[in-house]
Amino acid sequence: MTEAVPAIQTLLEELTKLPGIGPKSAERIAHFLLAGDRKVAVTLSEALRAVVERIRPCRECFNLTEGDLCPICSDRRRDGGIVCVVETPRDVGLFERAGTFKGVYHVLGGRLAPLENVGPDKLTLTQLVQRVRRGGVREVILATSPTLEGDGTALLTSNLLAGTNVSITRLARGVPSGASLELVNSQILADALDGRKAF
Amino acid sequence: MTEAVPAIQTLLEELTKLPGIGPKSAERIAHFLLAGDRKVAVTLSEALRAVVERIRPCRECFNLTEGDLCPICSDRRRDGGIVCVVETPRDVGLFERAGTFKGVYHVLGGRLAPLENVGPDKLTLTQLVQRVRRGGVREVILATSPTLEGDGTALLTSNLLAGTNVSITRLARGVPSGASLELVNSQILADALDGRKAF
Ligand SMILES: [Zn+2]
Ligand SMILES: [Zn+2]
Repeated sequence: MTEAVPAIQTLLEELTKLPGIGPKSAERIAHFLLAGDRKVAVTLSEALRAVVERIRPCRECFNLTEGDLCPICSDRRRDGGIVCVVETPRDVGLFERAGTFKGVYHVLGGRLAPLENVGPDKLTLTQLVQRVRRGGVREVILATSPTLEGDGTALLTSNLLAGTNVSITRLARGVPSGASLELVNSQILADALDGRKAF
Repeated sequence: MTEAVPAIQTLLEELTKLPGIGPKSAERIAHFLLAGDRKVAVTLSEALRAVVERIRPCRECFNLTEGDLCPICSDRRRDGGIVCVVETPRDVGLFERAGTFKGVYHVLGGRLAPLENVGPDKLTLTQLVQRVRRGGVREVILATSPTLEGDGTALLTSNLLAGTNVSITRLARGVPSGASLELVNSQILADALDGRKAF
């Protein structure tokens, strides 16, 4: 029945755009949402609208947040002198769950990927350099992905910071080369942070 | 980062209410929705709102549709004299994909489940009897699930239709007893329709 009903068809198409959702999962979810009082469809729609309207990059670190500063940048117990440079807000979550890092972050917004047209201008590199130049930062930890593109991004970042007085380190290769940061566990991340060395 | 941001937290909670979406999938989806221009978050939110506002039961068969009559009931090539009684709109989709049925449907809206407080009044049984009494129906095919509850629903439906002049059949047990209709393939459904016998 769903195929011929435009509103349901549109919902199915939108659901299959989500990562990990194929046509079968989309149909199961659509039928779940259409059954009964449809309360979840309403609340999910509102939750999506809310993140679109309210979530924006932190003024300081470009992590996603509501308001002006993210909870980490606002936290006076964090050491603002150590900045861990990551690719995405998701990576911040991974390090936070590892639980050993007491500094702050800088979210680049991706990594250099020439084939996908992601050049330095798409990343928050200028903002990182400005942040370091403003002073107060003692160490920048390059925590990009242990991949070709992540290493390239780390190298460029390091070059851009060369004029500043900051100590630049990178994650120890406790993280397995070629894999995605999402696939390693908290212990591996904690080890890698621990064993970080000069870049 | 996501944990401390209320709007993201709410989105994660709503996503994990969906069937087949655990905390990890929810996080992956949330980060996908929050990345870039958030166009999918907007369009998905709108698609959800649209189904909530526009999708309602077909006046004739209680299949989900926009407008008054569903595409199947509106299709003059379908044989309105043969009514296949199913539990849910999703079952309609399963039979339509099997592709051999040229009659129409009646969606009960569930099956009798005393333990879950689903009694006959929760189903569109009265409407089915009225529909048959209005005339023009030659055969009612009982296509409820091949389970204890589905069989009970079929039995009650058959009893309620006993006073009418209609021929009552049920699906051949080509469908494996105890399983969900969703788990059998189109061929099994087509076979079961083909071999249907008097109830
Ligand atoms: Zn921040
Ligand atoms: Zn209909």
